[in-house]
Amino acid sequence: MEYKILGKKNLTPVALKTLTDEERTELCAELRDKILNTVSSNGGHLASNLGVVELTVALLSVFDYTKDKIVFDVGHQSYSYKLLTGRFDEFDTLRKKGGISGFPRISESSYDRFDTGHSSTSISAALGMARARDLRREDNYIVSVVGDGALTGGLAYEAINDAGHSKTRMLIILNDNEMSIDRNVGGLSRYLSKLRISSGYISAKATTESFLRKLGFFGRGLIRIIIAIKDFFRFLIYRKKPSIFEDLGLVYYGPVDGHDTKNLIKALDAVKDIKAPVLLHVLTKKGKGYPHAEQHPSDYHGVGPFDLETGVSLNTKLSYTTAFAGSLCEIAAKNRNVVAISAAMTQGTGLETYSMKFPTRFFDCGIAEEHCVTMAGGLAVSGFIPVVAIYSSFLQRAYDEMISDVCFMNSHVVFAIDRSGFVGSDGHTHHGLLDISYLNSMINMTVLSPRDYKDLRYCLDYAVNRCEGPVAVRYPRGCSPFESAGPLYTDPEECIVPHLSCGSGSDYAIISTGRICSEADKAVELLKEKGFNGIHINLALIKPLPVKELIRMTNGISHVFTLEEGIQSGGFGEAVTRSFSEDKCSCRVYNFAVKDPVVRAASPAEQIKEAGLDAENVASVIAGALGGL
Amino acid sequence: MEYKILGKKNLTPVALKTLTDEERTELCAELRDKILNTVSSNGGHLASNLGVVELTVALLSVFDYTKDKIVFDVGHQSYSYKLLTGRFDEFDTLRKKGGISGFPRISESSYDRFDTGHSSTSISAALGMARARDLRREDNYIVSVVGDGALTGGLAYEAINDAGHSKTRMLIILNDNEMSIDRNVGGLSRYLSKLRISSGYISAKATTESFLRKLGFFGRGLIRIIIAIKDFFRFLIYRKKPSIFEDLGLVYYGPVDGHDTKNLIKALDAVKDIKAPVLLHVLTKKGKGYPHAEQHPSDYHGVGPFDLETGVSLNTKLSYTTAFAGSLCEIAAKNRNVVAISAAMTQGTGLETYSMKFPTRFFDCGIAEEHCVTMAGGLAVSGFIPVVAIYSSFLQRAYDEMISDVCFMNSHVVFAIDRSGFVGSDGHTHHGLLDISYLNSMINMTVLSPRDYKDLRYCLDYAVNRCEGPVAVRYPRGCSPFESAGPLYTDPEECIVPHLSCGSGSDYAIISTGRICSEADKAVELLKEKGFNGIHINLALIKPLPVKELIRMTNGISHVFTLEEGIQSGGFGEAVTRSFSEDKCSCRVYNFAVKDPVVRAASPAEQIKEAGLDAENVASVIAGALGGL
Repeated sequence: MEYKILGKKNLTPVALKTLTDEERTELCAELRDKILNTVSSNGGHLASNLGVVELTVALLSVFDYTKDKIVFDVGHQSYSYKLLTGRFDEFDTLRKKGGISGFPRISESSYDRFDTGHSSTSISAALGMARARDLRREDNYIVSVVGDGALTGGLAYEAINDAGHSKTRMLIILNDNEMSIDRNVGGLSRYLSKLRISSGYISAKATTESFLRKLGFFGRGLIRIIIAIKDFFRFLIYRKKPSIFEDLGLVYYGPVDGHDTKNLIKALDAVKDIKAPVLLHVLTKKGKGYPHAEQHPSDYHGVGPFDLETGVSLNTKLSYTTAFAGSLCEIAAKNRNVVAISAAMTQGTGLETYSMKFPTRFFDCGIAEEHCVTMAGGLAVSGFIPVVAIYSSFLQRAYDEMISDVCFMNSHVVFAIDRSGFVGSDGHTHHGLLDISYLNSMINMTVLSPRDYKDLRYCLDYAVNRCEGPVAVRYPRGCSPFESAGPLYTDPEECIVPHLSCGSGSDYAIISTGRICSEADKAVELLKEKGFNGIHINLALIKPLPVKELIRMTNGISHVFTLEEGIQSGGFGEAVTRSFSEDKCSCRVYNFAVKDPVVRAASPAEQIKEAGLDAENVASVIAGALGGL
Repeated sequence: MEYKILGKKNLTPVALKTLTDEERTELCAELRDKILNTVSSNGGHLASNLGVVELTVALLSVFDYTKDKIVFDVGHQSYSYKLLTGRFDEFDTLRKKGGISGFPRISESSYDRFDTGHSSTSISAALGMARARDLRREDNYIVSVVGDGALTGGLAYEAINDAGHSKTRMLIILNDNEMSIDRNVGGLSRYLSKLRISSGYISAKATTESFLRKLGFFGRGLIRIIIAIKDFFRFLIYRKKPSIFEDLGLVYYGPVDGHDTKNLIKALDAVKDIKAPVLLHVLTKKGKGYPHAEQHPSDYHGVGPFDLETGVSLNTKLSYTTAFAGSLCEIAAKNRNVVAISAAMTQGTGLETYSMKFPTRFFDCGIAEEHCVTMAGGLAVSGFIPVVAIYSSFLQRAYDEMISDVCFMNSHVVFAIDRSGFVGSDGHTHHGLLDISYLNSMINMTVLSPRDYKDLRYCLDYAVNRCEGPVAVRYPRGCSPFESAGPLYTDPEECIVPHLSCGSGSDYAIISTGRICSEADKAVELLKEKGFNGIHINLALIKPLPVKELIRMTNGISHVFTLEEGIQSGGFGEAVTRSFSEDKCSCRVYNFAVKDPVVRAASPAEQIKEAGLDAENVASVIAGALGGL
């Protein structure tokens, strides 16, 4: 497709404002084409981006992106915005090493106003910006674009509560597509579907109220009477309850059709100058314009490369996630106390089959990680064994709840932590690099970091059926770099014992945990070639650390190196260093770990290399240390 | 006062249910008296406990506490419950070492159903318990008692959203006293005050709807028509909007007078068997029955010992908190970019004076730590310097937001972390023992831990005026054990440099941070008496750790000990151990830090001793290590 409008060099705010209706329609088609072509080749977030094409064009037709601030919640719907704010030429590098991020990044463009990636932050951030503007007596517009899914997050509610009280002028666009990543759950979702029914009336309302507000001389009293009468008639005619958002102090308008650019522009123009926090309810369709994605929006939320014509993914399906999911089904079939909990990620965490097999023992609590964990705490003190499946970086949201509502009571909750370690193209907001560190500091917590699918299955079984108290099993996104042959252990308990992975000799020892163990194996080979003979010990059990066993296995070795896919501070390696030091070991311990967690989008292998955790670097540092003897 | 009813040994659930109205009135008076006498002597939470006396008596008159489960949100209102469920005799030990906790503790009584202490968890926990009950096909009642303040927390909203969707039978008592610790803020608070107006009508509604629901043969259609007509008349007569809680899927009843036991019992009986999540809106008065507390509920939220007659506190007022508050006012007067943010703790964090002096540059965002931090992120990217003043253990709630919405963007947000270290009588849920560990793992974060008031003032000035990027200043609850004489530094920048606190000699070195430095000073004296001569280095700057300087200062010393008031894993000491090891220092480093963060209620000094961080233990361990040379 020729990008007649999108390809223009001078797509300034003024140029965007002065497009004709036909040009806007053409522009939307070009944006969709560009997004589809790029995402089918690079992978990325598809359905959410296709859903907001018209909305983004409308926003940039009304607001000046060089002065006004638009904050996209989560940010996985910002592709159109990026294309329209100076990043068309580099867009082919989307989610590649050194390329355009799949999320807003202030380091990438001054028009990306806030780094996002985690859900439900945009209203808080926008409120902060609006307050800053008011303190400076400036008059630019501040807009938050937030999905109905993100509204299930408590953070969004906290922000609405504060905004409703503050009366600060700002605009919240509720992008209502009836989905988070999976279909939405919760009372709010049910409530929104009631609101959706009465579109016709609302645009009239917007015009009337905007008009009334502008007529200062009518006086507040008169306006109140008019509104009271209007409310009464609204009630009589529509039997529609006033909006929950108005109860919380926002001015509510909507719903409006989110794929009708012309009407959207009208609505934005009507509400933008209201001196209060306004919520404009916009209805969109996830995946709009690409039939495969319209029909199966969950499947096309975050995708790898796929065939544009058939919609078929070019990726294999076997992964740590599927290994976890299969194993959990087997375990739950035998142990009726097992219940599973998801935070709007049934599909992402692999729990679809489980949820169909055990519907009464499955709870999707919405994008509400905190509630998931505390609710699990309630189930656990009642004798059930909740398996809380949440991505590592999102579980950060429930840090306090894990400690206060689970660990302090020593409750048997299993945390199935997917996406631990480097995650690839989503970049630094999505890496699971902090989990070992935060889990290590939690009292009573057992921490397991299996290396491959098989190890994961043993660990999960151990966590559910052998452990008491809170236990975390962390495993990476995607595929295992290797798979051990044959059964690993004769008794599941063995999964917590450190084992010799490869090598012999006493020049050095590497102690690794998790999938990164494959790099350590390779490093041993590389070092052998250089004439250094040492051992590689791998273990899944990070906490409580089997210190005595590790000291026994490294006895007589004076150079010990730890290797992990996580932040150094509070991590596995630091715990080994401290434990060895406390135990008066004479060896020197050096940690290979992540020092700077801002490792940008790239493949996981590239990210491991960038962090210096790859076999080549490990071997080279060890050789350097040994050579210096 | 003679405790005629409360003092009875056989205060069984049946006995409570069969009290006469007069006996209930007498019981309430006895509870108030007991609470007032105990709290005025031991300190504790007063206003909240006085507010729920009648409510607790009513709950225990309707529900059987041996089978039914009542979860108190935060738990600082559970004294009456404790007194009525077998803990009258030990109640004098409230908040003392080895005594009754000021919060529900499952380890203390099987009738305390969930450990609480942090806000907004009770609905989630209760929903988990209700789901467990349903899975087991049991039929006991599950009740959450939650204040209107706690409802400003996003976690409570997430739980309501899930409960409203689930339709699980449970009862949420909204204990509406128009306060959290300070007067409530937010749109919800404004909304609740509208609901409060229409009490008369509502009890009729409860009866009617309860009746309608019981009449199965009426058929859903007919009931719907009746409800529609009723809604219409409600609208006509009261112009009252249907409740926000009903929009979210709860069944709403109220408001009812929370100090009328008889009516409360009626209301509870009317709603308890509804097969849905029900919210009963109860109006109470904080401090009820003690005029001083009724008039100044914020002052009597959490109190130290006070004179019962005059209400005058027996505590001194000078504290780290007041030092912070005074200093911030001075800084803000000079630097107009400073704004301060509180999470419903204006008074607790000492910001009352600030909020009056700089009202436009002060934001109380409600019990909403997450939103506070993300909103601060929005202000910071707009050029302001937000000072977010939150207690250490409550800031755990915003762990993810600190990383994602502040640290990743390297935004200059100052975290003023009060109540770090041991907090005394509130016990383990309130200790600030994790902050060093979690702050150490956060990219771009600077961490300062001043030792006394003066050091705190320098550190705060440095954090606001000299730092770039996120910076945390952590300081303890209460009074400094010492105060340095004269000005500490000639240039504020010196506050980040490690300094020799006392001692000379090279037998050992202690490196300490924060107020615990006074124990190290004493340990040096004790060791001198034993014939060991070493040095004590104190530093405020924990991150980035001035490794080179520390190595230089400990040069030639082979036994180095670190001392901190925080968890070992990921803490200050572990970072020193690792850094020294990486730097190939030949010394052995041993960490004095907290290994088990469940240190129960006691005085901070007792807690420091229990954790082995007191001068005597430090000296004894060091002497042991040196003696073994």
